[in-house]
Amino acid sequence: MMNSDHAFMARALELARKGLYSTHPNPRVGCVIVRDGRIVGEGWHARAGEPHAEVHALRQAGDKARGATAYVTLEPCSHHGRTPPCADALINAGVARVVAAMQDPNPQVGGDGLLRLMHAGIAVQSGVLETEARALNAGFIKRMEKGLPFVRVKLAMSLDGRTAMASGESQWITGPAARAAVQRLRARASVVLTGADTVLADDARLTVRPDELGLGAELSALAQARPPLRVLVDGRLRVPLSVPFFQAGAALVATCAAASARDRYLDDGHELLAVPGSNGHVDLRRLLVELANRGANEVLVEAGPRLAGAFARLGLVDEYQLFVAPKLLGSSARPLLDLPLARMADAPALKIVEMRAVGDDWRIIAVPQPVV
Amino acid sequence: MMNSDHAFMARALELARKGLYSTHPNPRVGCVIVRDGRIVGEGWHARAGEPHAEVHALRQAGDKARGATAYVTLEPCSHHGRTPPCADALINAGVARVVAAMQDPNPQVGGDGLLRLMHAGIAVQSGVLETEARALNAGFIKRMEKGLPFVRVKLAMSLDGRTAMASGESQWITGPAARAAVQRLRARASVVLTGADTVLADDARLTVRPDELGLGAELSALAQARPPLRVLVDGRLRVPLSVPFFQAGAALVATCAAASARDRYLDDGHELLAVPGSNGHVDLRRLLVELANRGANEVLVEAGPRLAGAFARLGLVDEYQLFVAPKLLGSSARPLLDLPLARMADAPALKIVEMRAVGDDWRIIAVPQPVV
Repeated sequence: MMNSDHAFMARALELARKGLYSTHPNPRVGCVIVRDGRIVGEGWHARAGEPHAEVHALRQAGDKARGATAYVTLEPCSHHGRTPPCADALINAGVARVVAAMQDPNPQVGGDGLLRLMHAGIAVQSGVLETEARALNAGFIKRMEKGLPFVRVKLAMSLDGRTAMASGESQWITGPAARAAVQRLRARASVVLTGADTVLADDARLTVRPDELGLGAELSALAQARPPLRVLVDGRLRVPLSVPFFQAGAALVATCAAASARDRYLDDGHELLAVPGSNGHVDLRRLLVELANRGANEVLVEAGPRLAGAFARLGLVDEYQLFVAPKLLGSSARPLLDLPLARMADAPALKIVEMRAVGDDWRIIAVPQPVV
Repeated sequence: MMNSDHAFMARALELARKGLYSTHPNPRVGCVIVRDGRIVGEGWHARAGEPHAEVHALRQAGDKARGATAYVTLEPCSHHGRTPPCADALINAGVARVVAAMQDPNPQVGGDGLLRLMHAGIAVQSGVLETEARALNAGFIKRMEKGLPFVRVKLAMSLDGRTAMASGESQWITGPAARAAVQRLRARASVVLTGADTVLADDARLTVRPDELGLGAELSALAQARPPLRVLVDGRLRVPLSVPFFQAGAALVATCAAASARDRYLDDGHELLAVPGSNGHVDLRRLLVELANRGANEVLVEAGPRLAGAFARLGLVDEYQLFVAPKLLGSSARPLLDLPLARMADAPALKIVEMRAVGDDWRIIAVPQPVV
């Protein structure tokens, strides 16, 4: 059974990925119902408040679910949320076996759903394609396990590691394919986070533009319906409300400046969040905790060398996505990260997990390695 | 016949590549003799002064060469050099057809060999897998066509484009697989070129160490028998003869300082080459012309940011090989190239032709794009 278990779970993961741009704060989940070696029902979770993957799949399977095997990329829920427990739905449908890719990462409910199924006489298995399933929901899992979101830092640089000229002159140094890839990174995130430097210097809006995503109509519409929260870190409230960033829609401003400004932001449709800090710099870890408490699974940091460098220095980065333009900006150009280090021994080690051509540019994905 | 022509030429190119580390100043050439659809003789050129590929292949074929087709990766020579003309050897052996991947790039003799074959009644064709054949001998071709060697610049950097700490602290930032790749780059070059900074700061020797090449016994022995000429650019003769670089064997020192020092270098087995310059900087283009005149096909530049940056500024680089270590050295660390640019419009454009994992490191191959 191992080979077909893998194949059906792979299909369930494929379905789950359709929720990449829309399920947050929920995890992406897919489900496949198999009877006599054939798929009789498929489902995936599209967005919070709507039915879970299992419900869609069971509806499609109808009576054929009786005696069938259900493949789910995440342990079925056992609690009443905005929808009834999926474990009960599977029991009521009469499935004979449930295969999960992984247990629920929430330490308070993990295992409960599988136990409930077992007590109802259903054969239960967990851990099929677990690595792939965990990768798909790295943000949700980190939030459940650590109370922090998964932080992905996107940077665009020249081959010699520079982001702009010394004068500040800066423009798109990467091409359209790389920009579409960045749009998809934004769309999948719960939060897109930036800093005052970027918003002031580049007139950045950090919005998702569905026509630039390069996705089909269904996923584009889902992405558009649930855009990421745009968060501006502005410790000293330097950014005026007139900039394009604020004009582009409601945003959250994290600051350690006087809360007396709150009403001014509220009047324009924005929220001002007071976060402790020092020397006018917001405590980034506390900000991340607050964002996790609000349900943020993945945070995409698109910021200049100072703010991105601060995340790096504090060890808050889970993944770097470096878009590399085939140019040399030269030795007087601006650095990738504001990260002053004196000794080689202090240099953070990473693991490069992927390098891939994206149009004429290349993308490097690197993850920080634990300090040994 | 097209498909089998390609297949036999691909085999001839495979043979030619065996000469990667030993044919200079000659090109790498392979030859396959085919009779009735079967290979009856194979040969490749190992080193200057020894028989050409065609001679080896014809010897192996013996009488079976009569009426056969010869596949050669380069037009057979028609002139008496250190060995008799290969065109005559093919004629004498009675081959019926000769397929060449490319004509001889030497403008004074290009086409002569094929004409000679045609006049002897042999069917002749050129241009099969020409792109691959040209790539294999890019250095030889550039020297023949332009009177300059192919210049490959090797650099090792961190993910953020840095080469050493501000203090000068520097060490192997890349791992053993990357170092073996660099050894192979040295071994294939006619010249390994470095600067005073590198030799003084790093005690660099720039030698080929056969046991670190990661090649088989035959190719390692060939590489060892014909090591690249080590060239030190030392405009002001700052480097004392006591450094490891000079202890490691005979070297060529290019300088614009007084030629009166010549005897001192000669006594230690080294050659001092006077090259015009300004402000104590050797004219690098003139140096390259001189190296080409001495038969250098490929020059590997392994130097610090200043010398490598000078090659870049002068537009003398044909290919960059960047070895990227998965580390962040930070914003106060030393730059990849000393290349001060003020405006984005001045930023040199490159094309990234390959990114590939080399152990835990990655290698990026990029070629400068013509200015449009």
